[in-house]
Amino acid sequence: MEVSTLVRLGVRSATSEASVDSITLFVVLLCLCIVIGHLLEKARWMTESVTALLIGLCTGIVILLTTKGKSSHILVFNEDLFFIYLLPPIIFNAGFQVKKKRFFQNFMTITSLGAVGSLVSFVIIWLGSMHLFEKLDVGFLEMGDYLALGAIFSATDSVCTLQVLVFGEGVVNDATSVVLFNAIQKFDLSHINSTIALKFSGNFLFLLFTSMVLGAAVGLLSAYIIKKLYLGRHSTDREVALMILMAYLSYMAAELFNLSGILTVFFCGLVMSHYTWHNVTESSRVTTKHAFAAFSFVSEIFIFLYVGMDALDIEKWKFVKESPGTSIGVSSILLGLVLVGRAAFVFPLCFLSNLARRSQIDKIGFKQQVTVWWAGLMRGAVSVALAYNWFAMSTHTEQRGIAIMITSTITVVLFTNVVCGLLTKPLVRFLLPQQKHLDSVMVSSESEMSLAMPLLANEEAPKSNMSGDNIPRPSSLRMLLTTPTRSVHYYWRMFDDGYMRPVFGGRGFVPYAASSPNENMHQPLLSEQKIVEL
Amino acid sequence: MEVSTLVRLGVRSATSEASVDSITLFVVLLCLCIVIGHLLEKARWMTESVTALLIGLCTGIVILLTTKGKSSHILVFNEDLFFIYLLPPIIFNAGFQVKKKRFFQNFMTITSLGAVGSLVSFVIIWLGSMHLFEKLDVGFLEMGDYLALGAIFSATDSVCTLQVLVFGEGVVNDATSVVLFNAIQKFDLSHINSTIALKFSGNFLFLLFTSMVLGAAVGLLSAYIIKKLYLGRHSTDREVALMILMAYLSYMAAELFNLSGILTVFFCGLVMSHYTWHNVTESSRVTTKHAFAAFSFVSEIFIFLYVGMDALDIEKWKFVKESPGTSIGVSSILLGLVLVGRAAFVFPLCFLSNLARRSQIDKIGFKQQVTVWWAGLMRGAVSVALAYNWFAMSTHTEQRGIAIMITSTITVVLFTNVVCGLLTKPLVRFLLPQQKHLDSVMVSSESEMSLAMPLLANEEAPKSNMSGDNIPRPSSLRMLLTTPTRSVHYYWRMFDDGYMRPVFGGRGFVPYAASSPNENMHQPLLSEQKIVEL
Repeated sequence: MEVSTLVRLGVRSATSEASVDSITLFVVLLCLCIVIGHLLEKARWMTESVTALLIGLCTGIVILLTTKGKSSHILVFNEDLFFIYLLPPIIFNAGFQVKKKRFFQNFMTITSLGAVGSLVSFVIIWLGSMHLFEKLDVGFLEMGDYLALGAIFSATDSVCTLQVLVFGEGVVNDATSVVLFNAIQKFDLSHINSTIALKFSGNFLFLLFTSMVLGAAVGLLSAYIIKKLYLGRHSTDREVALMILMAYLSYMAAELFNLSGILTVFFCGLVMSHYTWHNVTESSRVTTKHAFAAFSFVSEIFIFLYVGMDALDIEKWKFVKESPGTSIGVSSILLGLVLVGRAAFVFPLCFLSNLARRSQIDKIGFKQQVTVWWAGLMRGAVSVALAYNWFAMSTHTEQRGIAIMITSTITVVLFTNVVCGLLTKPLVRFLLPQQKHLDSVMVSSESEMSLAMPLLANEEAPKSNMSGDNIPRPSSLRMLLTTPTRSVHYYWRMFDDGYMRPVFGGRGFVPYAASSPNENMHQPLLSEQKIVEL
Repeated sequence: MEVSTLVRLGVRSATSEASVDSITLFVVLLCLCIVIGHLLEKARWMTESVTALLIGLCTGIVILLTTKGKSSHILVFNEDLFFIYLLPPIIFNAGFQVKKKRFFQNFMTITSLGAVGSLVSFVIIWLGSMHLFEKLDVGFLEMGDYLALGAIFSATDSVCTLQVLVFGEGVVNDATSVVLFNAIQKFDLSHINSTIALKFSGNFLFLLFTSMVLGAAVGLLSAYIIKKLYLGRHSTDREVALMILMAYLSYMAAELFNLSGILTVFFCGLVMSHYTWHNVTESSRVTTKHAFAAFSFVSEIFIFLYVGMDALDIEKWKFVKESPGTSIGVSSILLGLVLVGRAAFVFPLCFLSNLARRSQIDKIGFKQQVTVWWAGLMRGAVSVALAYNWFAMSTHTEQRGIAIMITSTITVVLFTNVVCGLLTKPLVRFLLPQQKHLDSVMVSSESEMSLAMPLLANEEAPKSNMSGDNIPRPSSLRMLLTTPTRSVHYYWRMFDDGYMRPVFGGRGFVPYAASSPNENMHQPLLSEQKIVEL
């Protein structure tokens, strides 16, 4: 890079000069993405993530040309950066902004689509790749590698799919994949037998459960502290700081105890939005709501920029050049398996779901099933991060094999994002033309972020939201996720009102004995929230 | 640490396990600091930074005991972390929340206290240490080292002093020190002659000026983009994200061009609060105001925790043990020079200022001069960071010398913070008992953060703020900073209204043609802000 040739004699040491350069460039690119994303808002086929991917690719080309083919990226893909700093805000915000009522009412459907679904596609991709790669003569992979491939490619990109109707699925799915991946790393699965398989399943379920409990516990602790201490009495900023820190704490604690940070932070977000958020001052509410969304937004764009830039890594493509056939073969097979793997659980589950529904209007039509299938095809940064973790950091010594697997992963990610991403809006318009006002089902429509609902919502949705137009409308697609678990929901409310709220606060809790005038002034903002609350 | 003995087999690689441990511990400690700081709110002699320092010290002791004397800190003091991530939010928030009207009306006083003052104490500490250390037989220091010491210890801790009446001084002072430090690193100052001194001064002034211009330019750019594109039309979060990114960009760009990032980001904050902040939606205003304050708050606590933990670095104290006399001597001399250095400009400048004032009531009394002198004695994280930069990373090979200089720096920082910090509140109460309702002059009293005004404000101040009780009260201490530059301010307003606001927006700018009902609902919040606006 040219900028790095500047003689820098400042406070910073030599090693960090490069990081000042690259941080500056990244910040400029992020700003560009936001502005361009805003300008392309009206373009029907464009999503913000595709914009970021394309800008990342272009920047990669520019860097490649200025460095004369030496390098295309300014930061090496660093999975720590991804897992420690970028992913937590995205997943936390997903939990924080989700419509809890709908989420819990559809808990079973989401869990089945998410957990069962990703298990199905895990098995299909694992077995499929094992059999198909043998014919391709990809000799360098072992049993563990195929299992890892299954986990890597069953991670529906929650960053991207969050935005789609199958939102809740995305998070559960990501978490499932990461937990699976952890389990694969932990157990010696090169020789599977029934004992190992049983242990494996037990471990898997235990991780899922403890992660959820930990997330809920940290969320409840934050609610309790803020309710007991009335932090807002002295300082709104202290409340905001504590909420941010506790949210992050839940993720880090889960990672520390080797649980699934994704699942933990998601449940922490859920609990925080149900209790903690109501215990703080009005300013803190507005601040946390938008600040969390903005963090998440920036992290998402950052990830896509990153993946876009990393796609042109010249070192890896050199190996691919030597054996283009193998590389194209591997990419195509993986892509095919992703398509098949998703089809293998979406259509059967929809069929089962239809069996349980009586009226014809509630049933999920074929076109809608195709939409659900298509919208969840994207693979994203989680897949890339897992692939790097497995192939670049494992004991693999064969450079060529590593390069081929990583470039194939990036190829699949780019292809699913760009092609599927670009085609999804037109596809939805083509398949479901009558549902003009269809809301994305599980997505936080009170968030004004357009990124959060680009696919099934038409571009007028954010505006109509502002005039309070987010009353649930009947639609068969939404009903997909409305299985009859209302009774569970009813008992939960009884328990919540009787035991939880008196201790942890929640909606209706007034932080001050004598509320300040400002508090009352801002009541109108709340009304919007109340509609969507549990 | 015990936690690190846990077998971790997760997604993270071995190297990053330690970082998960330490991040988790740090987040827990930060939460503790917030809660304890809140509980100690009523204690007259306690400030939040002292709390954080003490918690840091205690944690250091615990780690020292559990590791059996091997190490006291879990993170090595990393100046990149400090200069790239922790300092920018603090300084930006200082600029963003400052009362612009008062700041600009007192621009000359602040500049003289800040820039002239730190130059005076730079010269005194430089020459003083050179002469006094010779008698102590501290033979390992060269000319450049003494100059560096001058720059290191003329950096009044803006993190801490921000909170005092001499707030504006703190930032200018810090910036001056860092620019001086840069200049010392750049020039070969071992043999000073008039040419070099002239070049040095020219360079110094050029850096000051260009940094301010860059900060203002980035701020104006953000205002222009947001005004032109109406980002809030689609997404509040996009506005918030863009403001955060542009603020950070100003700092990084300044560092990239080798300017003073501190000064740049401070002016960027000023310009953003004057123009950009008024161009965004009401939600974005609330969000940015509190989110920036919360960032700054967390960064401050983080820094003090860090310094507290680092104070017990056993490696360095081993060297000190070998020559306790030298070490105590160095610390005492530096402390004495800091006291003298500050006295050497505060009292003369106050005397000059008194000469210009006609009425007896406007004059600054001796007791008030003592308060101004005392309140700015604290040295903080900037000094520590500069000391590490110079002594630990330079070509110095003598371990003992490095250790003595760094431990002395930390000793001075701890002493000034704990002793001066604890004594300041009682001192102010003793010296100025009649001024019960005295506000900290330059400080953002609209920020509800108690940290922002612990010293001269009594503990009821935050509450009285909430009921709109922040109308300026006449007080001779405030008048200290009210020199007659009102005419400059008048012409600025003419220029601002005529040329700047039509292009860059600002107060009164309405983002929407037809404002949404929510916008009007929240008008009351604004009124408070309007009082303090330029």
